[in-house]
Amino acid sequence: MRRLLTLAALLLLALPAAAQPEGPLTIARQGSFFIGGREVASDALSTLPAYASSGTVTVDQMYVRYQVPAAATGRPLVLVHGCCLTGKTWETTPDGRMGWDEYFLRRGHPTYVVDQAWRGRSAGSIAGINRVRTGRAPADELPTVFAAAHEGAWAIFRFGAEYPQVFPGLRFPLEAQGEFWKQMVPDWLNSLPTPNPTVPALSDLARKLEGAVLVSHSQSGIYPFQAAALNRAGIAGIVSIEPGACPAATGDMTPYKGLPVLVLWGDYVELAPRWTPRLKGCRDFAAAANAAGGKVEVVVLPEMGIKGNSHMLMQDNNSLEIADWLAGWLARATGPGK
Amino acid sequence: MRRLLTLAALLLLALPAAAQPEGPLTIARQGSFFIGGREVASDALSTLPAYASSGTVTVDQMYVRYQVPAAATGRPLVLVHGCCLTGKTWETTPDGRMGWDEYFLRRGHPTYVVDQAWRGRSAGSIAGINRVRTGRAPADELPTVFAAAHEGAWAIFRFGAEYPQVFPGLRFPLEAQGEFWKQMVPDWLNSLPTPNPTVPALSDLARKLEGAVLVSHSQSGIYPFQAAALNRAGIAGIVSIEPGACPAATGDMTPYKGLPVLVLWGDYVELAPRWTPRLKGCRDFAAAANAAGGKVEVVVLPEMGIKGNSHMLMQDNNSLEIADWLAGWLARATGPGK
Repeated sequence: MRRLLTLAALLLLALPAAAQPEGPLTIARQGSFFIGGREVASDALSTLPAYASSGTVTVDQMYVRYQVPAAATGRPLVLVHGCCLTGKTWETTPDGRMGWDEYFLRRGHPTYVVDQAWRGRSAGSIAGINRVRTGRAPADELPTVFAAAHEGAWAIFRFGAEYPQVFPGLRFPLEAQGEFWKQMVPDWLNSLPTPNPTVPALSDLARKLEGAVLVSHSQSGIYPFQAAALNRAGIAGIVSIEPGACPAATGDMTPYKGLPVLVLWGDYVELAPRWTPRLKGCRDFAAAANAAGGKVEVVVLPEMGIKGNSHMLMQDNNSLEIADWLAGWLARATGPGK
Repeated sequence: MRRLLTLAALLLLALPAAAQPEGPLTIARQGSFFIGGREVASDALSTLPAYASSGTVTVDQMYVRYQVPAAATGRPLVLVHGCCLTGKTWETTPDGRMGWDEYFLRRGHPTYVVDQAWRGRSAGSIAGINRVRTGRAPADELPTVFAAAHEGAWAIFRFGAEYPQVFPGLRFPLEAQGEFWKQMVPDWLNSLPTPNPTVPALSDLARKLEGAVLVSHSQSGIYPFQAAALNRAGIAGIVSIEPGACPAATGDMTPYKGLPVLVLWGDYVELAPRWTPRLKGCRDFAAAANAAGGKVEVVVLPEMGIKGNSHMLMQDNNSLEIADWLAGWLARATGPGK
């Protein structure tokens, strides 16, 4: 325990003063709502006598929790989590430090934290389970749903090359990994159509906010680009953190013309066969987009001298240092909010 | 539209001034965390090549989001949602008014909004689905999971005797029912052991808060009582709003001796065959508990002259009027926080 405390003290000393905002937080307004959703009739909602099997449910909506600071000076940020996670990604870190949702609020940005469609507080349908349970469909028609195991997720989150190895200098708070694993939820992604219902919901939310920056992570990395292709109105910028994919470099670059885009990467990418080609794909996209009038920047943190960041860089022990840098990029690239 | 606006204006006039707090909100601290959770090994986590089928996942944890006001004068409140819902229950109402989470914060109470185990941001296991999908278990071993249809939920939430009838004078904002239906999520409750993992999590949370009032609703109504039976430490009071069940009057009343308990009911209970026996059960429990040194009050709002409330009284158009009354009860019965 003493060793842990010493470590924690050293880490605090290593952070710049700006990265530890304190004191009361003044909120102009806060709350939550849903974007999107559609009503679906089903005859496989329940196998219990207390609840009717047939009727209407609403699915595909996206849950949004927001806070607007009293002194809003920056663009609204829409924070979109990645695979097997929820909006919790952006809140208090596994080791109990301030999340990006509050940090950016304190930096003057209204923040909108979402749960992707069919995940967290955004309902999906379980009719596919009950159709099989009641013998009306074969087992191979069960929905595709998976849970990422700690061991397999280890390499995906780039804590190390493989479980339980640790990359030297890793900044993810592994001493609190138990709290991180609690953030993971089953993922119904592969049971959903393309584009994922989250995409039109992000587009609608951006229009509602009249100038938002869509901040995505990992599996949701492509969504802001797909939302911009759907409708550019209301999208003031895109920050794609370690995206599962950037748009194909061979595709139509029109949606990204003049749009400030940051694609941000942590450390160890060249040591991770899963991620190396994805970074390359983003560099190819940036070249193609910029040749067509785009404003895409690909930033790899170690190239700026910031080392040791995992795939979960918003939770790493220098998460607020990165957020501080990002706040500067947002101010430069996307300007103040309305 | 004009008619709706006129209606809204009339409703605003009908509310007391105290029920519309405005202006900036000052927060001392906020964030989120999990309580509980256990690691489970499974060999049916995925049917996709990208994610391993075998490994460890964490389930049974309870997600908690909290805010502590700068001027905390009241007990911490733990707000627990009911069947087929999530912590969203307590946030912004379907028609866009302030939720109880913020109202009680403005009244000086730290608020802790949870998602029950296996719901919302609290992960459950989908291994039971994949075991059947991969032929390792028969279809009748699929997990029991249901979604409450709008039509069936109508009578349960007491919007009317049956869908789409409306009780005269109903205060639920039915014009925004579409937004309410978006709050509903599939419910895995019946796949969980007794007591539900939410119960020990509530007990642990209360101890951590060193004197919290557990506020439950509907399906979670029995949980605070079960948590008190598990361990009274940290439980400063119980508010059970329209509980699915009160403790059996024939049971052991020791856990409730001297504990301030409020069981709160809305209107139309005598018109709802689902609810009439449950209110009676709570009256029987109150009599038994009080005979054994309990401090249980059963309050039925129409008996205080407050009429028209549905089962979702924290979202009805007089929700803040009820909250205002409840804040008074809390101050009287459970005293200030530490």
